[in-house]
Amino acid sequence: MTDRMRIRAEQLNELSASVMQKNGCNEAEAAIVAEVLVEADLRGIFSHGTARLKRYVDHIASGIIRPNTDPEVVFESKLAAVYDGKGGVGQRIASIAMEKTLEFAKNCGVGFCSVRNSNHYGIAGYYAERATEKGFIGISTTNTAPLVVPTYSREPVLGTNPIAISFPLNGKVFLLDMATSVVPRGKLEVYDRLSKEMPDGWAVDENGNSTNNPTVTLKALLSKLGGILPLGGPGEMFGGHKGYGLSLLVELLTAGLSQGKYSKETYSGRGEICHFFGAIDPAIFGDREEVTESLTRIVDEVVSSERADGQSKIYYHGEKEARKRQDSLQKGIELDLKTVELLDKLADKFEINRPKWEDCR
Amino acid sequence: MTDRMRIRAEQLNELSASVMQKNGCNEAEAAIVAEVLVEADLRGIFSHGTARLKRYVDHIASGIIRPNTDPEVVFESKLAAVYDGKGGVGQRIASIAMEKTLEFAKNCGVGFCSVRNSNHYGIAGYYAERATEKGFIGISTTNTAPLVVPTYSREPVLGTNPIAISFPLNGKVFLLDMATSVVPRGKLEVYDRLSKEMPDGWAVDENGNSTNNPTVTLKALLSKLGGILPLGGPGEMFGGHKGYGLSLLVELLTAGLSQGKYSKETYSGRGEICHFFGAIDPAIFGDREEVTESLTRIVDEVVSSERADGQSKIYYHGEKEARKRQDSLQKGIELDLKTVELLDKLADKFEINRPKWEDCR
Repeated sequence: MTDRMRIRAEQLNELSASVMQKNGCNEAEAAIVAEVLVEADLRGIFSHGTARLKRYVDHIASGIIRPNTDPEVVFESKLAAVYDGKGGVGQRIASIAMEKTLEFAKNCGVGFCSVRNSNHYGIAGYYAERATEKGFIGISTTNTAPLVVPTYSREPVLGTNPIAISFPLNGKVFLLDMATSVVPRGKLEVYDRLSKEMPDGWAVDENGNSTNNPTVTLKALLSKLGGILPLGGPGEMFGGHKGYGLSLLVELLTAGLSQGKYSKETYSGRGEICHFFGAIDPAIFGDREEVTESLTRIVDEVVSSERADGQSKIYYHGEKEARKRQDSLQKGIELDLKTVELLDKLADKFEINRPKWEDCR
Repeated sequence: MTDRMRIRAEQLNELSASVMQKNGCNEAEAAIVAEVLVEADLRGIFSHGTARLKRYVDHIASGIIRPNTDPEVVFESKLAAVYDGKGGVGQRIASIAMEKTLEFAKNCGVGFCSVRNSNHYGIAGYYAERATEKGFIGISTTNTAPLVVPTYSREPVLGTNPIAISFPLNGKVFLLDMATSVVPRGKLEVYDRLSKEMPDGWAVDENGNSTNNPTVTLKALLSKLGGILPLGGPGEMFGGHKGYGLSLLVELLTAGLSQGKYSKETYSGRGEICHFFGAIDPAIFGDREEVTESLTRIVDEVVSSERADGQSKIYYHGEKEARKRQDSLQKGIELDLKTVELLDKLADKFEINRPKWEDCR
């Protein structure tokens, strides 16, 4: 814990927004990027928090992200739309598309949007939960940079392709937010830094053979071979073909329906990431209170099942993150000092006053 | 291959329908049970084929399934409905609910149905594909008997809860049809019969500890402890919490939205299984031909990626089964002799003329 300090969300939010504005983002873009990054930090998902800020800045510099660019509706029906993100800021595009999705759902009970030509949008769960705050079942999914090999392939043509689905429950939210790969790329990088062997079933080398050496996979990825395995691991013995199917499903919902680029084709010049959003009103299935009660009861019963030897708790999805968020709001976000340093450097570079970080502990 | 013969689908269909009718099913119920069972056999999914016929007969005898019973719409909105299956025949209830779903989708672009108080409905993929035959994205999912432990639990409160999602492509169908557990129960039974050790990561014992002994898990299940692990295996190291999340998602869509029983509560007296169906018109996202072309292109490119060492082919989901189906239609269904014997016994028991099985080879 000595390498972390407790920081107030507002400070991180303000700095992030300033950095994005200094890099050409308009106010709305800067605000939503800051919000989504800080939400990740609040929940303890630091890989997708303000530590990403530098990458966004770099992506603007290299032309992958075009700031101050509005997405355009290219097709619209009664309860669905397709957006062309025009290479703009992922969080802003996603936020507009989810708002549109919610409009459809308010009018029709259900709404969907598929988006092409966008950029990294942060944590998938943020957008699903935004629907659920309004009482809807929320869906948010995105393709990503190509990192994952299909079952029996050695070429990383798929992304880690997260799927987020959330349900409104009494007093809480069920939020499943899962990469469709066994692990995210960040996990390989951590093992690489520690020179640690990966367990069997995480990744393959340039020939598609299992490897325990993270360096081998990370190197192979540079020449667009090898990669991370889908959820379920290698072959079909542990259901790897299922993870592969979920990942391909994400490509179809995002790039397929929006007529955009699938993961293999992303980041060749521009980002060209694709998203998909959904909102479903539980009240199309019955009295809202009764349906919510039914959903809540099931989750409550499942987490009350008999614990395995040595386990102290069975969680529902989103529970850990919601607890962490509460804690972070009360006591400050537990940010590691390396990220704090990175943020200070960004402030200096863009001539923003360094925040007076207070350790809230 | 000596323990199998090639049998024409029509013979299996006719016999299955006759057996169901002799057991109190009306014509429509008998026809759809026969169709769904034979479809499974045609695709080589023998665990869900006519070998199941005896179990349905037993379930009728014990009052789990109530033949000659129509489901009832208990709630309906513009594009969704909830059915009470009234303990009737699963395939008939599911078929009616999917037809309703398609009606909604024809009128609104999207349709959903959630169903409670039904029974085993056969292969999930059958209903999704029925939507896709009509040009829609199809969704079909069901809870099941309780067999799967949540992450960190030792109590099998979840089902193997399959999810099927299908997309219409040019000249083919993408059909992901996957249990959300690592393996189905049948796999444990096969290993048990062969006195073979299971690989790590399939199942746990009555205390929730990993076991390689299928007998241990199958015995524990009799006292409602232990069970199969969710897709991703034990704990979180390989994403077991993701499979757990998908399984819980299925409970919410099926039992949650329909206000029915979740897997733990099924088969205590009646079946009380719950389903969920969806249909989405791809044309709500753009010109139908263009969208279909976009979906097809992605699948074609992914299966054309570089093959891993020693692999001869990368499949899309549903491809193996579609090929097998073609083969079975041309040359007959490759049924094992034990199932043939079982069918003969059923014919005798219910005083139906035994089919003159012809080996079509």
